[in-house]
Amino acid sequence: MTTGTAPTDFARRLDQTAEETEALLGKLLSEAPLPDEIARPKRLMDAMRYSSLGGGKRLRPFLVVESSAVFGVPRESALLAGAALECIHCYSLIHDDLPAMDNSDLRRGRPTLHKQTDEATAILAGDGLLTLAFDIITRDEIHSDAAVRLKLARALARASGIGGMVGGQMLDLAGEGRFGDREPVDVARLQQMKTGALLRYGCIAGALLGQSSPAQHQALDDYGHALGEAFQIADDLLDVEGDAAALGKQTGQDAALGKTTFVTQLGIEGAKQRVRDLLARADSALSIFGTQGDVLRAAARFVADRKN
Amino acid sequence: MTTGTAPTDFARRLDQTAEETEALLGKLLSEAPLPDEIARPKRLMDAMRYSSLGGGKRLRPFLVVESSAVFGVPRESALLAGAALECIHCYSLIHDDLPAMDNSDLRRGRPTLHKQTDEATAILAGDGLLTLAFDIITRDEIHSDAAVRLKLARALARASGIGGMVGGQMLDLAGEGRFGDREPVDVARLQQMKTGALLRYGCIAGALLGQSSPAQHQALDDYGHALGEAFQIADDLLDVEGDAAALGKQTGQDAALGKTTFVTQLGIEGAKQRVRDLLARADSALSIFGTQGDVLRAAARFVADRKN
Repeated sequence: MTTGTAPTDFARRLDQTAEETEALLGKLLSEAPLPDEIARPKRLMDAMRYSSLGGGKRLRPFLVVESSAVFGVPRESALLAGAALECIHCYSLIHDDLPAMDNSDLRRGRPTLHKQTDEATAILAGDGLLTLAFDIITRDEIHSDAAVRLKLARALARASGIGGMVGGQMLDLAGEGRFGDREPVDVARLQQMKTGALLRYGCIAGALLGQSSPAQHQALDDYGHALGEAFQIADDLLDVEGDAAALGKQTGQDAALGKTTFVTQLGIEGAKQRVRDLLARADSALSIFGTQGDVLRAAARFVADRKN
Repeated sequence: MTTGTAPTDFARRLDQTAEETEALLGKLLSEAPLPDEIARPKRLMDAMRYSSLGGGKRLRPFLVVESSAVFGVPRESALLAGAALECIHCYSLIHDDLPAMDNSDLRRGRPTLHKQTDEATAILAGDGLLTLAFDIITRDEIHSDAAVRLKLARALARASGIGGMVGGQMLDLAGEGRFGDREPVDVARLQQMKTGALLRYGCIAGALLGQSSPAQHQALDDYGHALGEAFQIADDLLDVEGDAAALGKQTGQDAALGKTTFVTQLGIEGAKQRVRDLLARADSALSIFGTQGDVLRAAARFVADRKN
């Protein structure tokens, strides 16, 4: 098997999808009236735009686009599904930054939404983005077959909800001792829910849009599972070894909070070995796709090696 | 045309649906593992149960059930769709009660969720209920045809989002002068978004589940529009004329906040006349259903005449 995606080609693809996602989100969050002239309160739309436009790697939409490319899904469909997923991601950052949650003042070098506006606006903008995701994922343009759109919507609700992201955030806060005694944390389970579920959704979205065989779906699910864990371990390693300037945020936060992470559980070398194992698992899962899986292979490496 | 639903029969039907909705929500929010053994963090589930179980008239599920009954939709399907709608309603109450929003300590005579637990838990429980609504509304048991479930999900996202409930709450806060100068309020538009959209959804849900004709759908939409406005005017009147004990909350809140309401715009007598006009409109919209519309007719009267 080749590893045919050169780093520069990969970077170009990632940038291209990020640009297209930015443009699409801008359009979805524009003030132009919808065909049915639904009212769009300006302050709310401004807040939603502030937190969802203006950068980011757009890794989740990229995974949707590239897992879809494997099956020849029209790019427009994949971008739209990716935008829905990104809305969920952006809402989760807004709510996580709130004073009652992580109380963060800065994100990507800019004031967080509640600092830029106020808490009420930030709560509503998060609620609005979460709801908009389901508005987008159910649109006709996503796929001509309603059953396909329905599967995408259902899987998105599962990845985002109590058994996924929201539940993971709750476990994370409990593990920090926010509700009394510090509760014991199963790091792998917590990560699979809090950050893994949305990344994994990005990987299976292509299988759903492409109406793949069960074996292909399983392969992308396994790949997404490995990628999600590698993403989190890389995050934990960056908090210990990373460069604050490149990250755009303070390092050493986990240690300051006394958090249980993959690094505290496995040690630095153990964590790095685990990443290598996960990359091998990701490669192995993709073998069913031959060279068609090259970009996804490169994506797993990118996630594991990123510096921010 | 008859008005064939006796008050006692109506009350019995309303109670019956409330009981069944309570049992269903309890089941949906139980800790029993799902078939795919999705993890359910206990603290989060407890919080979601606290705010969605234990009473309420369950008016929105009732509208789903009764608009569905017109078309002979299986009661189980309607109850499930009603439970999804109620999850949205309950999440909205949790987030509206937060200190950054309406800062309410009590709801239905009990501490609000953030008083009972903490703000982080309340934010996440709201997010969890909002997401769970889309998990429920996309389930196979709702309807055998994926296209029907998709329409229900899409309409729910529209009713709940920036052009519906969330947008309405933002306009409401702006009208209270929360973001600087008190912004001018179009009371009817605000109400249609903030409280009307979910009530109206309850009324068209039956048409969607019953795969009604366009004329029948339009009739229920018109009915829901009238019922939603009557609901809000009744609310505004109760705040002026109601009995705090029966309401379980303080009256005179709107005046204290200097809010523009239907009562400040139309006066008490003007508001009461408007309710009578709306009930006539609701009746007229339902004429297409003959005596099949009797329970819905009674529901509009119930909404307009309620004492709490």
